[in-house]
Amino acid sequence: MKSFFNVQDIGPLDKALAEALEVKRDRFQYQQLGKNKTLLMIFFNNSLRTRLSTQKAAMNLGMNVIVLDVNAGAWKLETERGVIMDGDKSEHLLEAIPVMGSYCDVIAVRSFAGLSDREFDYAETIVNQFVKYSGRPVVAMETATVHPLQAFADLITIEEHKKTARPKVVLTWAPHCRALPQAVPNSFAEWMTAADVDFVITHPEGYELDPRFTKGATVEYDQRKALAGADFVYAKNWSCPGVTRPEDYGKILSSDSSWTIDSEHMRWTNDGYFMHCLPVRRGLIVTDDVIESDHSLVIPEAANREISAEVVLKRVLESL
Amino acid sequence: MKSFFNVQDIGPLDKALAEALEVKRDRFQYQQLGKNKTLLMIFFNNSLRTRLSTQKAAMNLGMNVIVLDVNAGAWKLETERGVIMDGDKSEHLLEAIPVMGSYCDVIAVRSFAGLSDREFDYAETIVNQFVKYSGRPVVAMETATVHPLQAFADLITIEEHKKTARPKVVLTWAPHCRALPQAVPNSFAEWMTAADVDFVITHPEGYELDPRFTKGATVEYDQRKALAGADFVYAKNWSCPGVTRPEDYGKILSSDSSWTIDSEHMRWTNDGYFMHCLPVRRGLIVTDDVIESDHSLVIPEAANREISAEVVLKRVLESL
Amino acid sequence: MKSFFNVQDIGPLDKALAEALEVKRDRFQYQQLGKNKTLLMIFFNNSLRTRLSTQKAAMNLGMNVIVLDVNAGAWKLETERGVIMDGDKSEHLLEAIPVMGSYCDVIAVRSFAGLSDREFDYAETIVNQFVKYSGRPVVAMETATVHPLQAFADLITIEEHKKTARPKVVLTWAPHCRALPQAVPNSFAEWMTAADVDFVITHPEGYELDPRFTKGATVEYDQRKALAGADFVYAKNWSCPGVTRPEDYGKILSSDSSWTIDSEHMRWTNDGYFMHCLPVRRGLIVTDDVIESDHSLVIPEAANREISAEVVLKRVLESL
Repeated sequence: MKSFFNVQDIGPLDKALAEALEVKRDRFQYQQLGKNKTLLMIFFNNSLRTRLSTQKAAMNLGMNVIVLDVNAGAWKLETERGVIMDGDKSEHLLEAIPVMGSYCDVIAVRSFAGLSDREFDYAETIVNQFVKYSGRPVVAMETATVHPLQAFADLITIEEHKKTARPKVVLTWAPHCRALPQAVPNSFAEWMTAADVDFVITHPEGYELDPRFTKGATVEYDQRKALAGADFVYAKNWSCPGVTRPEDYGKILSSDSSWTIDSEHMRWTNDGYFMHCLPVRRGLIVTDDVIESDHSLVIPEAANREISAEVVLKRVLESL
Repeated sequence: MKSFFNVQDIGPLDKALAEALEVKRDRFQYQQLGKNKTLLMIFFNNSLRTRLSTQKAAMNLGMNVIVLDVNAGAWKLETERGVIMDGDKSEHLLEAIPVMGSYCDVIAVRSFAGLSDREFDYAETIVNQFVKYSGRPVVAMETATVHPLQAFADLITIEEHKKTARPKVVLTWAPHCRALPQAVPNSFAEWMTAADVDFVITHPEGYELDPRFTKGATVEYDQRKALAGADFVYAKNWSCPGVTRPEDYGKILSSDSSWTIDSEHMRWTNDGYFMHCLPVRRGLIVTDDVIESDHSLVIPEAANREISAEVVLKRVLESL
Repeated sequence: MKSFFNVQDIGPLDKALAEALEVKRDRFQYQQLGKNKTLLMIFFNNSLRTRLSTQKAAMNLGMNVIVLDVNAGAWKLETERGVIMDGDKSEHLLEAIPVMGSYCDVIAVRSFAGLSDREFDYAETIVNQFVKYSGRPVVAMETATVHPLQAFADLITIEEHKKTARPKVVLTWAPHCRALPQAVPNSFAEWMTAADVDFVITHPEGYELDPRFTKGATVEYDQRKALAGADFVYAKNWSCPGVTRPEDYGKILSSDSSWTIDSEHMRWTNDGYFMHCLPVRRGLIVTDDVIESDHSLVIPEAANREISAEVVLKRVLESL
């Protein structure tokens, strides 16, 4: 595996899942793979789970890890050619990226969507420069449009908790007080449509996800109908993806609190599990009793981030 | 040892001291203990000595270390249940703590007293959540009320420099320009009353430390009388502990510069050593000549922070 | 080697170069040297290349690495004796430095010139305190007046690309929008005058570098004449070194864009290579086409920072 952005990068999901469960049984069995290999983790945005779990996974594999927090304000990168760099940008990405690549074997990057320019975000303008100029495999630690380490961890968690061969999985939009990127729901949809599950997406009108991620999914605008018989309820907020109305990209179109997952919503399901990628705003996305119930998977999900990252880094190391 | 907050957590002090001196003779002899074990160090507050010495101690033991600087402003934790999280707090500690626990084997936490709410501080509201929800042993790297890694290092330093079986140790308040927590004097008092020393505390009236830490200590309000015959002078500022007047909690009650330790104060002692946990404000706590004299132990004291941390982490690893 | 600031610290350059090329062939061959040795990297200023390459080099050698970012605002060090520290400086360097030294085996420090007080800067007031009080070998990661890890990497790069036994190397000033220190040109001049090259410096009048670094170099004020026949063009901006007019120290004396290296400048050379230490402002120092050409060495130069750091740390470890 050269780089890790999309579900197809990991190959057949049944093999990836089997490998994840094997790694989980003994997470230190592949330490020779990472010996004298360095992972450079570059953060353009804050991180808790991704920072800790990816670093832990790399150390499980015997890798050296260097963490670089790029304070966007202090270290602005020029992206255009032909300009006189007499402003606040002190380095051009055409130099910065190959230099960073020269000190490591694998690069992991976190760079969120700006949510103001759909074309810029959906072209993955920033991380694609890393792919093009770093000379190293690039692992997405949440980009403008995808968060595959999260989606893979979600899939592992569903595999571990499913009670039927082909469970019903529902991705439901829920309200939030800030405009959030679509990376998590995009990747979750992409991975679930590739997995052996019955996948339904529900959200208010206008929140349609980009079709490149949802091919094969059922979209049901009535949340109650969508949740009926669900084995897994995956709640998440996202701002308008701008698919039908590009001018609404990044906007909050609804704050309808009837979409908040409470115990009544969960009663509509098939004794379903509650899932969320965290961090989660209680009272907006989900009520206290649901997230604290024995049917809440948010902590096992987060713990599986270490496993998904370890499988991905293992694959990358094997292909070096 | 499951967690490390108080003197009783370390067990008999003579055994702990013997172990400290053994570790100091060869600090790399227990590297198998830490293999594939990860220490997560969480800082809600700045740190120099604690950060470096604890990290060094963990590496001496062969552990992996992950350092997380929590910028209190950027990553506020909600602590109440039943609230709609539509403000500036983006994650509830009920999720954040078990997630952090899932990526490590041992958690070390630094979280200072706020000094505005005595009950909140003295209930150790923040770190107790880590004990309750992380599922991991928790090591205090200075909490609202205790700083046991410092007190243990102080005890080791006294053991190494004492000239009599039962030396006289005096904890003396000294003035400071800012309101400081009581964690260091609390722990020093707690450890000294448990140790085989003659322990005296001196401070202006109103600065009485919480009795849970000072049981068995002599309090002498006349600094000169207290220092008479002292083998070790431990200077430290603290703000009002609010024991007698809770409404004064966290306030500066005195800036009396006659309490500053100068060479005249040291002449009252039994050719005593000067100690301070650092950082120290010269000219307020102590004069240049005293801290620079050959009777100043501030550097050996700080160096012993590596030893106290290594013994504590060793004990925790042994009990995993 | 006890400390690393100047070219003489590394000894004969032919031996150092041979060692660099040997380390580059297998950068993991000296891992036993660094076992249980800790490098403390202290940054008073931002860093990209230096931070990553030095950390990588230390890990290549099997060292443990602790990185400390000193936020100059939050953690101000008092440097004077006899003052009452009741202001914003919470620790005296006379305590802070030996404490830092006690937790490591080697200290690397980055501390830029302030550019307001020539005497303070050129006396290396800050890093000399580390040499004096840390009790450890000190490696310069760019100080007020020198950047030897960069100059050594530059020398390695020239050695790898030279087509004649004694190439012509030209250090040329170029314009910049901010006042920059002289550390890079100082060290480059110091190393080139010690190396087996024909070395010429060119800059507008008033930009004369301190003679302690340029002994033996030819200074040619006509940039075109200087560049004639050059095998290597090393472009760099620096502010006034204040040699002839101390009152101009740190000032921008010229912003003459005719000094910007473009393809016409490169045509004057002997099919020369372009070099720069990075980060570089395109359009001010150099044009896009020159820095992107196949005669640009900026990326190999940066990559050799890992090698120069590894040789230096290897030498330091050998002398512990």
